[in-house]
Amino acid sequence: MSSTAQLQPVLDRIDADFDSSLQRLFALLRIKSISADPANAGDCKAAADHLAKDIATLGFATEVRPTAGHPAIVAKADGGAKDSGRPHALFYGHYDVQPVDPLNLWHRPPFEPVVTDHADGRKIIVARGAQDDKGQLMTFIEACRAWKQVTGSLPINLTIVIEGEEEVGSKNFVPFLEANKHEFKADYAMVCDTGMWDPNTPAITTALRGLLYEEVWIKAANRDLHSGIYGGGAQNPIRVLTRILGGLFDDDGRITIPGFYEGVKDLPPEILAQWSKLNLTPDSFLKPIGLSIPAGEKGRLLIEQISSRPTCDVNGIIGGYTGEGSKTVIPAEASAKVSFRLVEGQDPLRIRKLFRDYVTSLLPKDCRVEFGDHSSGPAIALDWNMKPLAAAKRALTEEWGKEALLIGSGASIPIVADFKRTLGLDTLLVGFGLDDDNIHSPNEKYDLKSFHKGIRSWARILAALAEVPK
Amino acid sequence: MSSTAQLQPVLDRIDADFDSSLQRLFALLRIKSISADPANAGDCKAAADHLAKDIATLGFATEVRPTAGHPAIVAKADGGAKDSGRPHALFYGHYDVQPVDPLNLWHRPPFEPVVTDHADGRKIIVARGAQDDKGQLMTFIEACRAWKQVTGSLPINLTIVIEGEEEVGSKNFVPFLEANKHEFKADYAMVCDTGMWDPNTPAITTALRGLLYEEVWIKAANRDLHSGIYGGGAQNPIRVLTRILGGLFDDDGRITIPGFYEGVKDLPPEILAQWSKLNLTPDSFLKPIGLSIPAGEKGRLLIEQISSRPTCDVNGIIGGYTGEGSKTVIPAEASAKVSFRLVEGQDPLRIRKLFRDYVTSLLPKDCRVEFGDHSSGPAIALDWNMKPLAAAKRALTEEWGKEALLIGSGASIPIVADFKRTLGLDTLLVGFGLDDDNIHSPNEKYDLKSFHKGIRSWARILAALAEVPK
Repeated sequence: MSSTAQLQPVLDRIDADFDSSLQRLFALLRIKSISADPANAGDCKAAADHLAKDIATLGFATEVRPTAGHPAIVAKADGGAKDSGRPHALFYGHYDVQPVDPLNLWHRPPFEPVVTDHADGRKIIVARGAQDDKGQLMTFIEACRAWKQVTGSLPINLTIVIEGEEEVGSKNFVPFLEANKHEFKADYAMVCDTGMWDPNTPAITTALRGLLYEEVWIKAANRDLHSGIYGGGAQNPIRVLTRILGGLFDDDGRITIPGFYEGVKDLPPEILAQWSKLNLTPDSFLKPIGLSIPAGEKGRLLIEQISSRPTCDVNGIIGGYTGEGSKTVIPAEASAKVSFRLVEGQDPLRIRKLFRDYVTSLLPKDCRVEFGDHSSGPAIALDWNMKPLAAAKRALTEEWGKEALLIGSGASIPIVADFKRTLGLDTLLVGFGLDDDNIHSPNEKYDLKSFHKGIRSWARILAALAEVPK
Repeated sequence: MSSTAQLQPVLDRIDADFDSSLQRLFALLRIKSISADPANAGDCKAAADHLAKDIATLGFATEVRPTAGHPAIVAKADGGAKDSGRPHALFYGHYDVQPVDPLNLWHRPPFEPVVTDHADGRKIIVARGAQDDKGQLMTFIEACRAWKQVTGSLPINLTIVIEGEEEVGSKNFVPFLEANKHEFKADYAMVCDTGMWDPNTPAITTALRGLLYEEVWIKAANRDLHSGIYGGGAQNPIRVLTRILGGLFDDDGRITIPGFYEGVKDLPPEILAQWSKLNLTPDSFLKPIGLSIPAGEKGRLLIEQISSRPTCDVNGIIGGYTGEGSKTVIPAEASAKVSFRLVEGQDPLRIRKLFRDYVTSLLPKDCRVEFGDHSSGPAIALDWNMKPLAAAKRALTEEWGKEALLIGSGASIPIVADFKRTLGLDTLLVGFGLDDDNIHSPNEKYDLKSFHKGIRSWARILAALAEVPK
């Protein structure tokens, strides 16, 4: 029997079992697997063990594998018809989540998941990781579960790998991947860590911006000073830092670092024409977050600003006295975290040098600067003609009753570059996130519909992929 | 017997009793009377009780008086010759201290005072408040103690008032002063909260810069955003804040706020000529703090930059993710604490309006700004001819063997304006602080010599003042 013929009972099973799927997601969401905080190392291990135990029940040969950081899970299962020439896919997800601060802005404890009503009536799952990436990766696991339970096997050959350090740059996972690359042979990779176009329109992401994340410390006097005694005479590192960062953009919203845009190409006219017709407007995109005016480069479409153009954001800044009340201090240092979203044609290491040169060129003689590097990865343009893409697009279109779009994403998923470089694999990026999911923010959520139809979507995609020759 | 004739045994007594004086200062320094932190309210009360009990032993009628904030001490004593026409002085000090953060930069616990060796061999007292203002105010109390113990009375009539909120702007003390002004009648005020010219040269401060301390919050989106999704499209309040603050100074170090320098007068040529001869150089003033280039207005003497010119410093800034590692967040808000040192001719309320107008004028349409006001007070030019000044100058010159200088100070002591406005009193500003005392910073210290000769100086000043007719 073909996988397509077996699909309907699998979808029925998903609907019937949905409450249990939700309970399994909740169990994972309750684990405080914040990778950035060493205090949560035990929770990360617990999340890995929990997931591995669950995946093993689906017929996968499953291992929790140590890395130099938090462990990874590696699980392998043959599709039902091993010798039928069906493809082998490598599915990737991550069980680690972002820190939860500022905690006081959460309406509920971040690790006590609930289903509740969104302001506009949508049912939503609220918890840290509800979307990124626990909710998303569980759509895939639950789809596998339904196939296994209904048909006794999976439609295609699968290797699942789930890491625990995506939110801190995968610094230990990538070496693990390189050291064990013979274990990850496959025809292509699949990742569920991206978004839909809107709550009713599915999407496959075919381009990703790169990321360069820098930290910069400006240091002046050898100690904190009293501004009444030294004010006017001694250099203030906050003054220097704000001057440098405040000068990063010109009046047209362009980044002023010399050479920053070198190699950046304009969109092909046909893509630009297509994008102009999409309904991504300040009203649809910015109004829900309380804004109205696109902040990027003047003369560019909003969709260009957020997906095809390089950007810069100061993600954090601190210096001097930041407690309640006042203190007349000139601090000895001030620092900021600055990140860049990069596009095709921009080499992260070159941009790092340009940024550091820019900062250094604006440094008064009396000050010192130190730089730290958090992560970097180039932009990715995926192959729009890769074999499984058309099948996945068809499957998504069938599930959602709306043509699935091929879109570019402003976010970075650096692992996609690593899969290409290390394993030679192209990646199929399918996900069910929405712009208002508050990922990396307080009150992260995942639409209940995203979770339910996400599981159904993967069940359909697996069936469709089984029909595509390797 | 005249006060002058009684002086020598008083000075001898100070020398003989110095170890006990130090122990009494240590007892006061051990009390964690940080006025800014509500958690230390009990400590502030304890410091007031402790001081009041001590002062009462010197023959003062002493009360701990409630205010709307931390309590104040009011103590009164008649000089030995009540009807002799001797003057009545109001002495002011404060028992509260600055917060101690960053605590990790202290070499010792800040509330466990010790006498130790400075790098250059000077003996120093190290603790929060060692100078500002516990050490300084105890020079006066100990001088009174010696007079009382040796002669049985004080050379002049005295009211002592010690408040507990100077470091947070005296917001409750000033109304207390106004409400009870009949209790504070005197011929002049005296404050021990200023500095010497250098470790061997005493000084009387005759001009003080004013202070305006503002807080500014820039708000953009209604929640924290993921920079991968919104970066390039959504406004970032750190970008807005750094642009505003980074533009506060032009290339010549002048403050760019329109109208800021209006009404600011240049120094009279004779004062400028006198100041040019003083040995205040980048080498003497900036080198000890690790700097070499005056950061103020180009074309001005360093001494002008730090004492007679208005200045601006960002004392604190915070926004976004400031923990370890990285987070790709666009925060919903960012804030800064900004203070201005003002000079004669600048009205703090006008400067506040100019600053707020400046910030608002640079605000993108999508952002909101909120302002907070921490404190404000105008600059003070004291009367160089006030009666007790010559006597105090003579007494200081005798004690230190070097001509006491009349200097301007960059720091603000707003109470001086309140004494003039509320009580009609001029203030004599004598203190023994040094530029390297680290007040408001980690490892605050007071030279042992400042403390010892400070007590002796006040003993001499009291004697000298007794000879000046009311």
